[in-house]
Amino acid sequence: MNSTSRMPTRQGVLEAAEKIAALLPPTPLLPAQINGVRCWVKCENLQPIGAFKIRGAWHRLTALSDGEKARGVVAVSSGNHAQGVAWAARELGVDAKVVMPHDAPQVKLDATRAFGAEVVIYRRPEEDRDGVAAQIIERTGGVLVHAFGDPWVIEGQGSMGIEIVTQLGREPSRIAAPCGGGGLVAGLSLACPSSAIVPVEPEGWDMVGKSLAAGEIVTASPNPPKTICDALQPLATKQINLDILRGRSDPGVAVSDEEVLAAQRFAFSKLHLVVEPGGAAALAAALAGKLDLDENTVIVLTGGNVDPAAFAGTVSAER
Amino acid sequence: MNSTSRMPTRQGVLEAAEKIAALLPPTPLLPAQINGVRCWVKCENLQPIGAFKIRGAWHRLTALSDGEKARGVVAVSSGNHAQGVAWAARELGVDAKVVMPHDAPQVKLDATRAFGAEVVIYRRPEEDRDGVAAQIIERTGGVLVHAFGDPWVIEGQGSMGIEIVTQLGREPSRIAAPCGGGGLVAGLSLACPSSAIVPVEPEGWDMVGKSLAAGEIVTASPNPPKTICDALQPLATKQINLDILRGRSDPGVAVSDEEVLAAQRFAFSKLHLVVEPGGAAALAAALAGKLDLDENTVIVLTGGNVDPAAFAGTVSAER
Repeated sequence: MNSTSRMPTRQGVLEAAEKIAALLPPTPLLPAQINGVRCWVKCENLQPIGAFKIRGAWHRLTALSDGEKARGVVAVSSGNHAQGVAWAARELGVDAKVVMPHDAPQVKLDATRAFGAEVVIYRRPEEDRDGVAAQIIERTGGVLVHAFGDPWVIEGQGSMGIEIVTQLGREPSRIAAPCGGGGLVAGLSLACPSSAIVPVEPEGWDMVGKSLAAGEIVTASPNPPKTICDALQPLATKQINLDILRGRSDPGVAVSDEEVLAAQRFAFSKLHLVVEPGGAAALAAALAGKLDLDENTVIVLTGGNVDPAAFAGTVSAER
Repeated sequence: MNSTSRMPTRQGVLEAAEKIAALLPPTPLLPAQINGVRCWVKCENLQPIGAFKIRGAWHRLTALSDGEKARGVVAVSSGNHAQGVAWAARELGVDAKVVMPHDAPQVKLDATRAFGAEVVIYRRPEEDRDGVAAQIIERTGGVLVHAFGDPWVIEGQGSMGIEIVTQLGREPSRIAAPCGGGGLVAGLSLACPSSAIVPVEPEGWDMVGKSLAAGEIVTASPNPPKTICDALQPLATKQINLDILRGRSDPGVAVSDEEVLAAQRFAFSKLHLVVEPGGAAALAAALAGKLDLDENTVIVLTGGNVDPAAFAGTVSAER
């Protein structure tokens, strides 16, 4: 419960990378031509759960004590962290309860349940999801596995950076990644100390970028705009993420829904990859000319869990 | 022009693999759970042209003499070989003319032209595409790059098998691959002498399977059934392919349109990959229980070039 009492470390990232390499093959790092520049895409949509969140969940759950495992885990997630926790919990024989919004994509709800987790629905934005989780924890004594504000989760997500360095043969000049609460970009910052790390967020939900600019945590407005990036809607980052990113991360970049849709279509037609809206945010920034690109730039595609009807509408829409 | 006068060799496959490794990174070999068995998918849909045909085209065009290069190349293709030849020709500064059917997917026509090739349309089934190509060759003196009945093309496609062995760390027990004229399966037979090679074809277009069973070339009926596998409709294999495959390839497997559609949906939702109908034929056979699967089985996904509207219809259809 007091998991935020320690700071994540580069050593922890290296340990996470070793644990994850023993479990999963590296996801492909593929060359791509973006606006005439040959750079790289890191295909975390090709993970077994279709998203990078398997990394942090695995590093966190394998660090639980036997007593903690017996009490089970509790997570709050729009769907990919949910699947990561559910997948890791099943592998380890741990009970998992996941608090998910009513408007999460059906594929994410179905997959989380298929991995054996109990899904508890809350209505957003009215209901306080952290409050729902706290009630469950009070009742069960379960261990909260926070989606981004947790040292093990940050280290686990950072393992992606260790893989990238091995695959590229050097540290990238720049890694641009879709950003929700800031767990992945914090982990990448630890993994790749020489790389510029660029968080990319939906317009109006760019709370990490705004927090970096302000030097303190900025919370989303009470009536934030709609976004198609279901995976990138936390109301605020956490201090642990901001402490790692401050002075380390590039200024954030924000992208529109139209830019995200264009990126999903590009991934479909040019890369032959299925990418969910939030997973395409960094690619959207690159295509929109909002990122400096060079041959050592890596664009992370974080996930591919998208409802078929939504994806069909996206790819068949007029450009 | 008399390129069929020599037989392709394993040494030629190894040379092709070296040339292609210098040009392109290996395509991912990803683990996949199919009918409860963990096996492997080889993702040739992630090639720069979205299909494996870049291999044979590169090996063939780089073997041309300067005089042949000056006269240009001519190909006949429903679209992926077209793109492979067009891509290689552009890289080498060679003129390319490609004969394509009127009903080829628009994305394949567009991409072939975008790589700088001249596209000559023929109407199928009325017009004789080989006759159209012969007329162009008579006029220009260009070199025919046959889509499958060519020793360099066969060796080039076989380079995929060399990659698979490196990635898997051993020869697969079995490689199942979508099959049109039989260039790829012939190349894989040379590359992986200990692996069972299984050609998978659309029902009614299983001319390689039928030819293997008959011990001689069998030609498609004058009114073959419709198939959604636009890439797998040659009217007959060639002697060079049959000579390699005879006594070497497993009996062929045939799949229905419905099985292919189910495989495309599986690739979308479980693998997060875009696969065209013909590219999903071997996966379709695996999912339909028509293939023996084990942990050393490799399923080849040959391509991902599919029109957006067609793909939208496929993934959003009721199952």
